[in-house]
Amino acid sequence: MANSRFEYVRGFERHDALLPLCWIVVRVDGKGFHRFADAHAFEKPNDARALRVMNDAALAVLEAFPDAVLGFGESDEYSFVLKKDTTLYGRREAKIVSVITSLFTASYVMAWPRHFGDAPLLSAPVFDGRAVAYPSDAVLRDYLAWRQADTHINNQYNTVFWALVDKGGETPAKAQAMIKGSDTAWKNETLFERFGINYAHLPAMYRKGSVVLRRTEEVVVKVDAATGQEVRRKRATPVVCHDDIIGDEFYRLHPELGIEADGKRRR
Amino acid sequence: MANSRFEYVRGFERHDALLPLCWIVVRVDGKGFHRFADAHAFEKPNDARALRVMNDAALAVLEAFPDAVLGFGESDEYSFVLKKDTTLYGRREAKIVSVITSLFTASYVMAWPRHFGDAPLLSAPVFDGRAVAYPSDAVLRDYLAWRQADTHINNQYNTVFWALVDKGGETPAKAQAMIKGSDTAWKNETLFERFGINYAHLPAMYRKGSVVLRRTEEVVVKVDAATGQEVRRKRATPVVCHDDIIGDEFYRLHPELGIEADGKRRR
Amino acid sequence: MANSRFEYVRGFERHDALLPLCWIVVRVDGKGFHRFADAHAFEKPNDARALRVMNDAALAVLEAFPDAVLGFGESDEYSFVLKKDTTLYGRREAKIVSVITSLFTASYVMAWPRHFGDAPLLSAPVFDGRAVAYPSDAVLRDYLAWRQADTHINNQYNTVFWALVDKGGETPAKAQAMIKGSDTAWKNETLFERFGINYAHLPAMYRKGSVVLRRTEEVVVKVDAATGQEVRRKRATPVVCHDDIIGDEFYRLHPELGIEADGKRRR
Amino acid sequence: MANSRFEYVRGFERHDALLPLCWIVVRVDGKGFHRFADAHAFEKPNDARALRVMNDAALAVLEAFPDAVLGFGESDEYSFVLKKDTTLYGRREAKIVSVITSLFTASYVMAWPRHFGDAPLLSAPVFDGRAVAYPSDAVLRDYLAWRQADTHINNQYNTVFWALVDKGGETPAKAQAMIKGSDTAWKNETLFERFGINYAHLPAMYRKGSVVLRRTEEVVVKVDAATGQEVRRKRATPVVCHDDIIGDEFYRLHPELGIEADGKRRR
Ligand SMILES: Nc1nc2c(ncn2[C@H]2C[C@H](O)[C@@H](COP(=O)(O)OP(=O)(O)OP(=O)(O)O)O2)c(=O)[nH]1
Ligand SMILES: Nc1nc2c(ncn2[C@H]2C[C@H](O)[C@@H](COP(=O)(O)OP(=O)(O)OP(=O)(O)O)O2)c(=O)[nH]1
Ligand SMILES: Nc1nc2c(ncn2[C@H]2C[C@H](O)[C@@H](COP(=O)(O)OP(=O)(O)OP(=O)(O)O)O2)c(=O)[nH]1
Ligand SMILES: Nc1nc2c(ncn2[C@H]2C[C@H](O)[C@@H](COP(=O)(O)OP(=O)(O)OP(=O)(O)O)O2)c(=O)[nH]1
Ligand SMILES: O=P(O)(O)OP(=O)(O)OP(=O)(O)O
Ligand SMILES: O=P(O)(O)OP(=O)(O)OP(=O)(O)O
Ligand SMILES: O=P(O)(O)OP(=O)(O)OP(=O)(O)O
Ligand SMILES: O=P(O)(O)OP(=O)(O)OP(=O)(O)O
Ligand SMILES: [Mg+2]
Ligand SMILES: [Mg+2]
Ligand SMILES: [Mg+2]
Ligand SMILES: [Mg+2]
Ligand SMILES: [Mg+2]
Ligand SMILES: [Mg+2]
Ligand SMILES: [Mg+2]
Ligand SMILES: [Mg+2]
Ligand SMILES: [Mg+2]
Ligand SMILES: [Mg+2]
Ligand SMILES: [Mg+2]
Ligand SMILES: [Mg+2]
Repeated sequence: MANSRFEYVRGFERHDALLPLCWIVVRVDGKGFHRFADAHAFEKPNDARALRVMNDAALAVLEAFPDAVLGFGESDEYSFVLKKDTTLYGRREAKIVSVITSLFTASYVMAWPRHFGDAPLLSAPVFDGRAVAYPSDAVLRDYLAWRQADTHINNQYNTVFWALVDKGGETPAKAQAMIKGSDTAWKNETLFERFGINYAHLPAMYRKGSVVLRRTEEVVVKVDAATGQEVRRKRATPVVCHDDIIGDEFYRLHPELGIEADGKRRR
Repeated sequence: MANSRFEYVRGFERHDALLPLCWIVVRVDGKGFHRFADAHAFEKPNDARALRVMNDAALAVLEAFPDAVLGFGESDEYSFVLKKDTTLYGRREAKIVSVITSLFTASYVMAWPRHFGDAPLLSAPVFDGRAVAYPSDAVLRDYLAWRQADTHINNQYNTVFWALVDKGGETPAKAQAMIKGSDTAWKNETLFERFGINYAHLPAMYRKGSVVLRRTEEVVVKVDAATGQEVRRKRATPVVCHDDIIGDEFYRLHPELGIEADGKRRR
Repeated sequence: MANSRFEYVRGFERHDALLPLCWIVVRVDGKGFHRFADAHAFEKPNDARALRVMNDAALAVLEAFPDAVLGFGESDEYSFVLKKDTTLYGRREAKIVSVITSLFTASYVMAWPRHFGDAPLLSAPVFDGRAVAYPSDAVLRDYLAWRQADTHINNQYNTVFWALVDKGGETPAKAQAMIKGSDTAWKNETLFERFGINYAHLPAMYRKGSVVLRRTEEVVVKVDAATGQEVRRKRATPVVCHDDIIGDEFYRLHPELGIEADGKRRR
Repeated sequence: MANSRFEYVRGFERHDALLPLCWIVVRVDGKGFHRFADAHAFEKPNDARALRVMNDAALAVLEAFPDAVLGFGESDEYSFVLKKDTTLYGRREAKIVSVITSLFTASYVMAWPRHFGDAPLLSAPVFDGRAVAYPSDAVLRDYLAWRQADTHINNQYNTVFWALVDKGGETPAKAQAMIKGSDTAWKNETLFERFGINYAHLPAMYRKGSVVLRRTEEVVVKVDAATGQEVRRKRATPVVCHDDIIGDEFYRLHPELGIEADGKRRR
């Protein structure tokens, strides 16, 4: 990209390396997905197809970036955790944010027909992205807890709201007024008594969001033609689950993440 | 996005507003397009279909962002100029970069079948993005000149190289050695004498790259049913052209861009 | 500063170059000078000695940094303008801010006895510093106008306030109430009618603040011993004045500053 | 600082908060102290008076900023550690750097006569300053180790160099050549055999640099007039020592610093 007398303009680019040895979280969030969801007739409050498109896009991020060790998604957003010692793009913020957001976006569009069949994309799904550096395991875990707690709060609210409106025949305004200030117990009771919905039995994907991480499995990579013996190798494959990522358990089960599991030791 | 005791993690996000009253240039560039071009059998040195996909994606950016007044594209990259007084996303760098890169990416994928027909996308096209602030019209014009001069240099090189290899039967190494250190005159002569190619007659899109900007046209918005009279209104529509953006002429013809046209007065 | 295995910690320093080709303004401001002024019994509302200490410190900045072309001071603050193409410390923000603030501070302490005689410094005078990049002459001039207009507003207020309190025998609360919401005319009349003070005749240093810049003078650098002839050379010496820096006039008289003088052409 | 139409220029100031929950290290370093040392005839390789002026200035920083828990100084530099949860100036980088550098500078000038007696300051001592965020105790300790290891390396080099030159009558060039590539053992032997200097017996201030921190002591705050009983209270007073800050010991003895002492647990 060299051509003499104009090239000085490169000097206006900012160096923007994220602080070394911090966890890097990249969060993407759909732009104007309220409208996008309406335009594509997403089911309310949760559209399983839409969430699966998100999950596919997230898996593509883990496939492409070995340093992305974990992802968490809900609604129109996904967060990706990059290893704290990653040197991806020299930790340059704009590079990391733009490339992950771009890959997520392309993968979303390409995954769409897999889950929406013939229903066409009517407008471009667009995501904003940001990167945040977190200096310790404790703060990283609080970040993840923040997002998953948010999933719970929103989903419980939305589930009651749409039950009241769609099944209970309440106006949206009335439904909102009823929920306002109510506690978890009331919400669960209302769902159960009035609509026969056991909140705890709703799909984990709605209640807990989605987690992407690598599962290491022994896979058959080839079969020896002569002996018929299988050659097996360990392979780390990105998968989706809906585990709790607030408590210690998850981190104890996944020491490979390198995230402190002992809630008492973290600060 | 509120939930009490974890929410403090938001405080780790950086404020990243770009300096006010500077032109903002967002440049996206294909990630590993060398491989992507090969995988999708792009024609060499220029694949008109691929360039048109890029141009469609660029038009989508201008459609979506009124403050994006100009774009310039070549090869796997596109630069967008945002008005110097834009307040888009409070001029937050990560927002601007990620959203434009994401929209560009989604539009690229969606435009693909329009130009490549049945040839499927075999992998996700991914773009990096960056934003740079330029404090004056003079520097902005030097930026644009930098990119268009680059187009010329690369295209001339590539055109000769692939003529020597594909038509001249030279090995790539030999071709490279022949071109190395040669001047423009030698390149033009070689193309003309040996391969009958008049460089100046090659498509402007290859030689000059592509410019996207708004053209204001009077369009018929409706026809009065009773009187049969047409109601016309001015509409600014994004279009592609291949004009020279190095000299003053272009800026004189497009005062609406607000970019100083007088080369002598700038700086 | 090299020693092997610990040295990686340098990598945590941030690159912080200010945008090229922008004017850089460094403003220092006394920390807690309300208290500092009281402790050292500064005269109210203006202490000429204190202002002269500030001016001496500012002259030291211009002596040390040829790229500092202009300074403006009032109260406990001083702003310095660095040429827009300065490459001082690679335009690194922390370096520029810290070194100028440090030099200003050291010079303040060293200048103190020159103006305060035997009255000792009872505590360390401390200044904060900041650097701001301004992309055009127009905005730079607005910055300078901002500070000088502030000087006028504050000085007029303070002059009336202390006249009412010290000479008029009003309580501070009463004085404040009287001034609140009053216009310039009322303030001038009050000063004149009640206290015989013609605001326009107060020292320019109080009304306009202080400007430091270089004056180019022909100076005798030596006298030829044999012929007795003087050898004269142009020398640019930092000086203090109290000119208006809001209007065009000042910039017309000082083309060497490289700041557009024509108010109409700017922006 | 309000005055209407010019005030928009404030909007060009950058927000520059340092990442939360990271240790902040502010390092100041004398500008051109090679020349400053020569001009003021500092003793070589160490001038105890000069180092004590530095230490006094460092104590002033600890006096003024409770969140500055530790300082380390050598030669013309001092590093200050701010608590990782400090909210000083909203963690704004320019404020923190400039104010600490300014206070250090003012204190240096004011401390000068205490240690240099009548020898006047011939020029302004100027310091640059910078702030760096360190995300973990481990990296912070490596930072401190980096500086103290540097002290040792430089001091050993300089001690041998000046012994060879001043006492050994070698030319500077010859001395340099002799030391080049030599190891610690050779340096110690040379000092001992040729000059009778036992390196380990040199003042700790030269070998280890200086550490400033708070010592909590019970002090008599008043004596009851009636009973004659002393009223004692704990007071944390900044003091200077020359302890090793590379090993674990120091941090074990100073749990109040909140820096992990167990070398094995840090990462
Ligand atoms: N019906 C339906 N809507 C969904 C689903 N997932 C997400 N959405 C919609 C509803 C929410 O209004 C929106 C996500 O909220 P956001 O706060 O991200 O708002 P939005 O994307 O509209 O604006 P933004 O550009 O992010 O500021 O996406 C779903 O599964 N079903
Ligand atoms: N055959 C062919 N290749 C093209 C065309 N346009 C772009 N390319 C390919 C060839 C270049 O190697 C590549 C663009 O160069 P870059 O410097 O952006 O490299 P690349 O994208 O491979 O790496 P990067 O990720 O940007 O560092 O894209 C085209 O029209 N035809
Ligand atoms: N009596 C007197 N006081 C002055 C003079 N010049 C400045 N001061 C004092 C009065 C003001 O309260 C103070 C400057 O106002 P600032 O807004 O800078 O406040 P201050 O320095 O107290 O706080 P800061 O640390 O800057 O936030 O300095 C003077 O000539 N005479
Ligand atoms: N004679 C003598 N010189 C000292 C003493 N402490 C510091 N210096 C001088 C010698 C070193 O050249 C200088 C510190 O080295 P620096 O790398 O900071 O260089 P300097 O301050 O000259 O340049 P700079 O502006 O920091 O890049 O200070 C001392 O105790 N005695
Ligand atoms: O052509 P560019 O600007 O992308 O140049 P590069 O050499 O690819 O550098 P970068 O790492 O900034 O993309
Ligand atoms: O949910 P977020 O973090 O996107 O919150 P927001 O209120 O949309 O704010 P932003 O402007 O940072 O996207
Ligand atoms: O010793 P330092 O960190 O000051 O190192 P330097 O080589 O002087 O570099 P800088 O320009 O960062 O002061
Ligand atoms: O007068 P300023 O610019 O110092 O204004 P301030 O209100 O003191 O704010 P700051 O915290 O930026 O010094
Ligand atoms: Mg948002
Ligand atoms: Mg959204
Ligand atoms: Mg959302
Ligand atoms: Mg690149
Ligand atoms: Mg590319
Ligand atoms: Mg490219
Ligand atoms: Mg202030
Ligand atoms: Mg002040
Ligand atoms: Mg002030
Ligand atoms: Mg240095
Ligand atoms: Mg130095
Ligand atoms: Mg030094």
